[in-house]
Amino acid sequence: MGGDRGPAAVVAGILASADKNPDVRFIVHGPENELNRLISGSRGLAARCEIRHADGVVAMADKPSQVMRNGQDTSMWSAIDCVKNGEATGVVSCGNTGALMLLSMMRLRRLPGVNRPAIACLWPSLNPGGYNVMLDAGADIKADENDLLQYALMGASYARNGLGIAKPRIGLLNVGTEEHKGRAELKLAHELISNNITTGAFEFVGFVEGGDIPSNRVDVIVTDGFTGNVALKTGEGTARLVSDELKVAFKATPLSRIAALMAYPALMRLNKRIDPRRVNGGIFLGLNGTVIKSHGSADATGVSAAIKLAFTLAQSGFTERLAARVASAQPSSQDESGTTNDNDSGAV
Amino acid sequence: MGGDRGPAAVVAGILASADKNPDVRFIVHGPENELNRLISGSRGLAARCEIRHADGVVAMADKPSQVMRNGQDTSMWSAIDCVKNGEATGVVSCGNTGALMLLSMMRLRRLPGVNRPAIACLWPSLNPGGYNVMLDAGADIKADENDLLQYALMGASYARNGLGIAKPRIGLLNVGTEEHKGRAELKLAHELISNNITTGAFEFVGFVEGGDIPSNRVDVIVTDGFTGNVALKTGEGTARLVSDELKVAFKATPLSRIAALMAYPALMRLNKRIDPRRVNGGIFLGLNGTVIKSHGSADATGVSAAIKLAFTLAQSGFTERLAARVASAQPSSQDESGTTNDNDSGAV
Repeated sequence: MGGDRGPAAVVAGILASADKNPDVRFIVHGPENELNRLISGSRGLAARCEIRHADGVVAMADKPSQVMRNGQDTSMWSAIDCVKNGEATGVVSCGNTGALMLLSMMRLRRLPGVNRPAIACLWPSLNPGGYNVMLDAGADIKADENDLLQYALMGASYARNGLGIAKPRIGLLNVGTEEHKGRAELKLAHELISNNITTGAFEFVGFVEGGDIPSNRVDVIVTDGFTGNVALKTGEGTARLVSDELKVAFKATPLSRIAALMAYPALMRLNKRIDPRRVNGGIFLGLNGTVIKSHGSADATGVSAAIKLAFTLAQSGFTERLAARVASAQPSSQDESGTTNDNDSGAV
Repeated sequence: MGGDRGPAAVVAGILASADKNPDVRFIVHGPENELNRLISGSRGLAARCEIRHADGVVAMADKPSQVMRNGQDTSMWSAIDCVKNGEATGVVSCGNTGALMLLSMMRLRRLPGVNRPAIACLWPSLNPGGYNVMLDAGADIKADENDLLQYALMGASYARNGLGIAKPRIGLLNVGTEEHKGRAELKLAHELISNNITTGAFEFVGFVEGGDIPSNRVDVIVTDGFTGNVALKTGEGTARLVSDELKVAFKATPLSRIAALMAYPALMRLNKRIDPRRVNGGIFLGLNGTVIKSHGSADATGVSAAIKLAFTLAQSGFTERLAARVASAQPSSQDESGTTNDNDSGAV
């Protein structure tokens, strides 16, 4: 209910997703009358959807702490509780990110061993699959070396189960690739991640720089939520600037306008390739359940992409695999004799 | 001598710059024989250049601390000392950034009141002038609230004197625009910068996000050197990705290849607009003298752009204005009665 385009865009996304994936079913949360009207108006959708009535809506400007205290009647709360109760395998929301994270942490609880959950996002890249994973994209502004280790393990597990990359390459974001560079916690995290490479689980490429985020050097980029959020928004802003300038360039002369018409299919392919709607869905990692945050302004295409991600992860038993992976890690305070992982030979 | 393309690219840049600006003269540092050969081969250049012999070269991989101890015979040391001795108004180098910063700090010293010098870079933007200023782009990985205040003052002074913006709009980079968001030092810096707005000097727009860096909301973006470096490299990497994908899109079909030919002038205009060579020259702010760091891989166009920036700043008496501006600031440890700036009515 709390997305910028309201429930109509969500129901349109559900319809698009239902058409493509016959195995997925939906529990939809919000005012019963409104949802009934939208869903019964969409061919064949009523049979695939169950409506859960919720009067309240979490607005974009609501403070997360207030939602946590007084938000029991909201559609967001109701949707998260469906995962908590085992009725749903994952929740998808276009609403207030801070409130969604805080409610998810409170209702679903963190996985054993996870200190700070993280938001992982997909980034268009030169990799064969077309996307890299970056985390934390902004769940928490701080991360110490143990948090960064957990992000590495969670990111690797997500890349395997969500993107099908057998042995993800993990990189730690820094201002240079030399081992002596950067903040103290990054040097410690470098050592910790190196010590936690178990056979076949992931590869550690060491420090990477901002320019490597869209590259083919790495599959998963690990950073704190402050840096990750700035990087994500800077990347989006830069792509928008280049695309705006391209439009200006194509409008400059009569010849360039004709060229633009002829290049239209090529430009549409490019647009599709870097379209943020298709990589829609930041995923919250480190909770007992799958929570997908769709862009607030997501349309049907965006909502459908977020649903597909939730569905893919549910089918792979992602939450259970992730929990096992995090539980097997050696934090820095433990004995580092290197034997803890001996009984953990397979990748999860 | 230490740039990726060696002294030939530098001399070519000097030639391009000398042709355009009859008032600029050059002191060129490096092996006398080699420089003599390059300069005497360029029409009319010998009369504008003085050669200072230096045997040693700072390599890109050299550790700054070692250059500081043993680099007395290098061209970099010789060039910086020319500014220190008052023989040159500014130094331009394509060499090792870390060594250039450390040598500059040691030989030129920091301006009174400056704790951490910063590197300011230009960023293509939607602003009328076409560029925003961002600092620190990576001189230091840390910055507390007083450093961020100094960056704001230095960035504003640079925008006025280097870019001709009468009243620059300053923004503080954060993960959201609400005042309660972000790290503790950012909240303190927000307050400090607000308290230091003197009549006509600059406007403070408050917190900005990564997406605002290339926008028309702001002229100067203030951040710590870790975040700034990641943002800069992420922006460059994203622009490169989009440009690579554009080339792929234009090669996809016979029709798109024809369109690409027709669109060639438009694409060249775009390329020129976002060409990193034309915004070449990170400037070191907070030192007794102007030091411009050109890209290591700069060609003649890049070197010439960096020289032009040094020349513009020298003509405006930038270093003296910057020193006056920083000296007038109120750090957080001082009495905040708000009267210190009463006698400082003009913008510098």
